[in-house]
Amino acid sequence: MCSKELYDFGVQLGQQIATKDRTIVCGRLGGFMEAVCKGVKQSQDTFNGQTVGILPDEKAEAANSFIDIAIPTGMDIARNTIIVRTADIIIAAGGGAGTLSEIAFAWQLEKKVLCITFFDGWAKELAGRNLDNRQNGLLIPVNSIDAILKQLDNG
Amino acid sequence: MCSKELYDFGVQLGQQIATKDRTIVCGRLGGFMEAVCKGVKQSQDTFNGQTVGILPDEKAEAANSFIDIAIPTGMDIARNTIIVRTADIIIAAGGGAGTLSEIAFAWQLEKKVLCITFFDGWAKELAGRNLDNRQNGLLIPVNSIDAILKQLDNG
Amino acid sequence: MCSKELYDFGVQLGQQIATKDRTIVCGRLGGFMEAVCKGVKQSQDTFNGQTVGILPDEKAEAANSFIDIAIPTGMDIARNTIIVRTADIIIAAGGGAGTLSEIAFAWQLEKKVLCITFFDGWAKELAGRNLDNRQNGLLIPVNSIDAILKQLDNG
Amino acid sequence: MCSKELYDFGVQLGQQIATKDRTIVCGRLGGFMEAVCKGVKQSQDTFNGQTVGILPDEKAEAANSFIDIAIPTGMDIARNTIIVRTADIIIAAGGGAGTLSEIAFAWQLEKKVLCITFFDGWAKELAGRNLDNRQNGLLIPVNSIDAILKQLDNG
Repeated sequence: MCSKELYDFGVQLGQQIATKDRTIVCGRLGGFMEAVCKGVKQSQDTFNGQTVGILPDEKAEAANSFIDIAIPTGMDIARNTIIVRTADIIIAAGGGAGTLSEIAFAWQLEKKVLCITFFDGWAKELAGRNLDNRQNGLLIPVNSIDAILKQLDNG
Repeated sequence: MCSKELYDFGVQLGQQIATKDRTIVCGRLGGFMEAVCKGVKQSQDTFNGQTVGILPDEKAEAANSFIDIAIPTGMDIARNTIIVRTADIIIAAGGGAGTLSEIAFAWQLEKKVLCITFFDGWAKELAGRNLDNRQNGLLIPVNSIDAILKQLDNG
Repeated sequence: MCSKELYDFGVQLGQQIATKDRTIVCGRLGGFMEAVCKGVKQSQDTFNGQTVGILPDEKAEAANSFIDIAIPTGMDIARNTIIVRTADIIIAAGGGAGTLSEIAFAWQLEKKVLCITFFDGWAKELAGRNLDNRQNGLLIPVNSIDAILKQLDNG
Repeated sequence: MCSKELYDFGVQLGQQIATKDRTIVCGRLGGFMEAVCKGVKQSQDTFNGQTVGILPDEKAEAANSFIDIAIPTGMDIARNTIIVRTADIIIAAGGGAGTLSEIAFAWQLEKKVLCITFFDGWAKELAGRNLDNRQNGLLIPVNSIDAILKQLDNG
């Protein structure tokens, strides 16, 4: 479910968002999440403890190899809620049903979600929309790494 | 988020789906879920233990008054995954971000979801669609109580 | 881990605690929990929906055959906290590490725990003790079915 | 529930276990857990991302001030199972009902638990015991920081 273009974009994104002040949280799987962690660990500014994986699995061994800190929840997909709670800002790209559930949780928890608009999937489809009347979340369209960095700097 | 029309429809639906062989699982809140439980308990065929509420709350007292068995998970919205796991068939009507997350989980868990098409919300918007390429779930449009009963009978 | 004596006692206990007003919650496994559910379902006063199993598993099929309502949490042993939250009164008999964790949770959640004193295990060892200074729980020794019924009637 | 002696011991322990290869996982509260994190962050060898708090809370703000990475689970005490899964080796000192539940989980998950024997509580009481017949865990008595370091080095 992750094209070569999306994976390469993830690595680039990881390389550019790694700074001393930022920790990256993901869910352990391969694909886009692995790509971003790989990019982060390739950055000169990376540090031990920067990439955190909140795993569906019962054991830490299941994490991809670019995760510094593995949190095995033993809760399967219910761990998606913990990923969203842990993040200050969510970055969504592409996206099947798992990503869709995370965007929906992020909205309920009033988090800011950056929806990358140049890969097909739920991130693109929902960018700029409201999920319901509560208007307590934000699904912000972003169309470049620069736009993402600008949003991250704004907090 | 639940109009009078949706609530009244929920009560009617509850009255008609209550049989000796069916248990109703919901998440405790008011609105549509309360309406269906109310309808079930008004049915002549209802029995003690037929309506189950899987609550986000830490204590059973939070359940709506038409729930026979309250399961307080203390897990907030992460309990949505348990609701979906417990159900054989999911019925979605209207729907904000919470319902959206449940539909996304149901898809991941390969459950059958009946999406009622005559109230605005995610149930209507997603009826008949695929959430991703995996094609392991089913979002079936239904436009009447008879159509729902037919789907329930087919299992 | 469940002797024939403990199993037979569980069946007897189940037969006698089943009334129109009581629902039995357990964790699905065989042994003592299965025995109590079996006894409940053998009682003339049982009703559909009386035995609830809050399962560690991802699917309902894992429940023992005397469970009316299976709640598959997909959370493995973390579901122990949900069992304890759901119960008004906990009955502990025998008991290895799983039961010990449930007694410890029950204490933290200020629940009343009836500790049966005539089978070896944590229930017997902790009967009548405090788990810490907070004194917010109660580990009450019980040495007969009559003593249990009396405690249940007191709420 | 944490005496000055236990707190001071925690700080000393934290200072001495901090190395480039070790991450410390705790549950966020004050007391002994805060003391160990404080000691770790006072060590010359500490690094950003070394102290991880797996919180019962819904928001990261609840973490003690010596936690680098806060994981707000929103699951209350059910998060104890995630703490235990995340750790390779558990260190228990003093201990009320919460610690008791963690020791019981650690045993079920076949983890090595170091039980410090010079502070009253469940760690001392259970040191060297089996929790049940399965013999799949280890509750190892330790009576000094040197003994702890030796056990950690043995993995």
